[in-house]
Amino acid sequence: MNDSGKSVLYHSDFGDLGMVTTKDFTYNNEFTFLSGQTIPYFRLRYETYGTLNSKKTNAILITHALSGDHHAAGLHSLEDKKPGWWNFLIGPGKPVDTNRYFVICSNAIGGCQGSTGPQSTNPKTKTNYGIHFPEITINDMVKAQALLIDALDIAQLFAVIGGSMGGMNAIQWGISYPDRVKKLLPMATTGRQSAQVIAFNEVGRTAIKKDPNWNQGNYTSKKGPRFGLSIARMMAHITYLSDQGLEDKFGRDRPSGWENGTFMDVEFEVESYLRYQGQNFVNRFDANTYLYFTKALDRFDLYPSKTMSPLGKIEAQTLVVGFTTDWLYPPEQNRAIVKTLLMYKKKAFYAEIPSNLGHDSFLINDHKLFRLVRNFLNE
Amino acid sequence: MNDSGKSVLYHSDFGDLGMVTTKDFTYNNEFTFLSGQTIPYFRLRYETYGTLNSKKTNAILITHALSGDHHAAGLHSLEDKKPGWWNFLIGPGKPVDTNRYFVICSNAIGGCQGSTGPQSTNPKTKTNYGIHFPEITINDMVKAQALLIDALDIAQLFAVIGGSMGGMNAIQWGISYPDRVKKLLPMATTGRQSAQVIAFNEVGRTAIKKDPNWNQGNYTSKKGPRFGLSIARMMAHITYLSDQGLEDKFGRDRPSGWENGTFMDVEFEVESYLRYQGQNFVNRFDANTYLYFTKALDRFDLYPSKTMSPLGKIEAQTLVVGFTTDWLYPPEQNRAIVKTLLMYKKKAFYAEIPSNLGHDSFLINDHKLFRLVRNFLNE
Repeated sequence: MNDSGKSVLYHSDFGDLGMVTTKDFTYNNEFTFLSGQTIPYFRLRYETYGTLNSKKTNAILITHALSGDHHAAGLHSLEDKKPGWWNFLIGPGKPVDTNRYFVICSNAIGGCQGSTGPQSTNPKTKTNYGIHFPEITINDMVKAQALLIDALDIAQLFAVIGGSMGGMNAIQWGISYPDRVKKLLPMATTGRQSAQVIAFNEVGRTAIKKDPNWNQGNYTSKKGPRFGLSIARMMAHITYLSDQGLEDKFGRDRPSGWENGTFMDVEFEVESYLRYQGQNFVNRFDANTYLYFTKALDRFDLYPSKTMSPLGKIEAQTLVVGFTTDWLYPPEQNRAIVKTLLMYKKKAFYAEIPSNLGHDSFLINDHKLFRLVRNFLNE
Repeated sequence: MNDSGKSVLYHSDFGDLGMVTTKDFTYNNEFTFLSGQTIPYFRLRYETYGTLNSKKTNAILITHALSGDHHAAGLHSLEDKKPGWWNFLIGPGKPVDTNRYFVICSNAIGGCQGSTGPQSTNPKTKTNYGIHFPEITINDMVKAQALLIDALDIAQLFAVIGGSMGGMNAIQWGISYPDRVKKLLPMATTGRQSAQVIAFNEVGRTAIKKDPNWNQGNYTSKKGPRFGLSIARMMAHITYLSDQGLEDKFGRDRPSGWENGTFMDVEFEVESYLRYQGQNFVNRFDANTYLYFTKALDRFDLYPSKTMSPLGKIEAQTLVVGFTTDWLYPPEQNRAIVKTLLMYKKKAFYAEIPSNLGHDSFLINDHKLFRLVRNFLNE
């Protein structure tokens, strides 16, 4: 795009958004969670890309996954090694086109990237909330986001787009605020998790809680349950990929020199990759948030009875996208959301994308996904 | 079978073997592992059921899975709540018919149920071997078993039968001692593990090694890395079952009274089941053995090159059995063993059993499996 020394900013992988800034929204009133518990105020950290039009009809909210955050696109500094997590999708001329849309992405309430959560100071006790933070549901995440959207003076979102937990957020937006969103685009998500996924989440939570440094949730950010959280992440990371994807990427490859180690050292490349994933995660994520968010995922249930689903409340046009090798939230669970919407005579579509990469396929540079998103937004 | 107060012994689930006794085989010479490392002697704990015929041609060796042991059938005492782990399969009139066959099951070398392993005393240091025990391969397990078979004065086994790691043992028997076994019946096994399975094993090992009580492998049995081992087991247990099996058994069921707990308590039945599995395991299994055995599994590889497989050495008639919902060692990996054997013009068969129960299907009371085993042994 240009040939200055800063051209790295304009590399296609880094997008054309260039530098973006992070903002804070503070809600200075009491906030009541679905559980009835309250906090006296909260903050959401968020970013925006593009420009809100004068009629305020072009706003798109991006909702993030369990380990995601508000930094969905662009760069924070020239030193950044990577742009935001959905930079492939969001930017000028991209499927979520910032030349046309005003894009907002906020960190969920309970998060650990600047939003109010377990690591925040409880004004009553002057210490961290820890596990005395109220229980969080997907419903609460959406309720807090809606207050941000109010503050931005946006009456109706053009769309809500998100994958995985972000997909649950998108659906919940349509349920909680039927008249405040025109299009929903959840992907790699589920109307409710299987027993197997609840089981994996419980192993992760147990690993955290059995780490002596968890200390019933009372820890400072530097002395938290790093071991437990890294175990939880290593295991969860396997569930985000696919058997075939891991086989293609690592197979039984061994790093050079492994023979010189003991049998306690890394022997297979996949082990070293997983250890890195675990280590990297503990440097950026809070263990208590992990407990709260996985619980929110486990409890999300769009099929609480055989005769009624909250999906019946949705008025937005909905496209749900599943990925063939996603075994965390398999294609049929994505399709089931659309089936139920159609039973309620809603305008809903299902698309399935062939991919080798499992659940995390929604985060990948995939032109089939991009075409779907572009067409759905522009039609 | 009788109507005395002891009739519980003859309940079909408990089998007709009644009381069985555990024996010890001690090999009083130096034993050299595949790695070249040695131990001055070893012990294998084992059981036998049925009677060896005068020509010693009716011996069947049962090889156990990662968490299994020598106690495959019958009861040890009237107080036993459960019989041996393959009691469905082994006993008078059962598929592995103790009226016809002399059945042997030994704990693998490196095990923790009475056989020499990391928890045994190193005669040189007078302390536990810990992680100074030699590295163990499937090859070593079979080599030690063969010394037991020598001691029983059996020149040739009629069959070796085992599931999962026991299936690898069975195949390795055919490779290491082609003229010492007539029939091989491995099931729910693999010629080599996928990157995904190595990854899961690495998470389990990391959980153990990051438990402060692991202490570089130096611990007494009562003060071992119980937390780490229970995490490893909880996670592994999910991989032994199937998505559908867990859904059918637990779904999203909640125990009564869960609403009264905090969100840190058990909320879903599947969580409570997993916690029980983890807890139960640490009471009977050694963490160092877990490290050694999972490493043996990871390293087992029947396809070290594209042009040659050790399977070519097998002379025994071989039946490999896969189970449809086994995602740890999927049907195609079981089938691949037979395909390779057929390329070598060996007498080999593959059978696939429809089952909802995942990898652990081989441990279940299933008449289709029983018929296969019976016919294969008797034909």
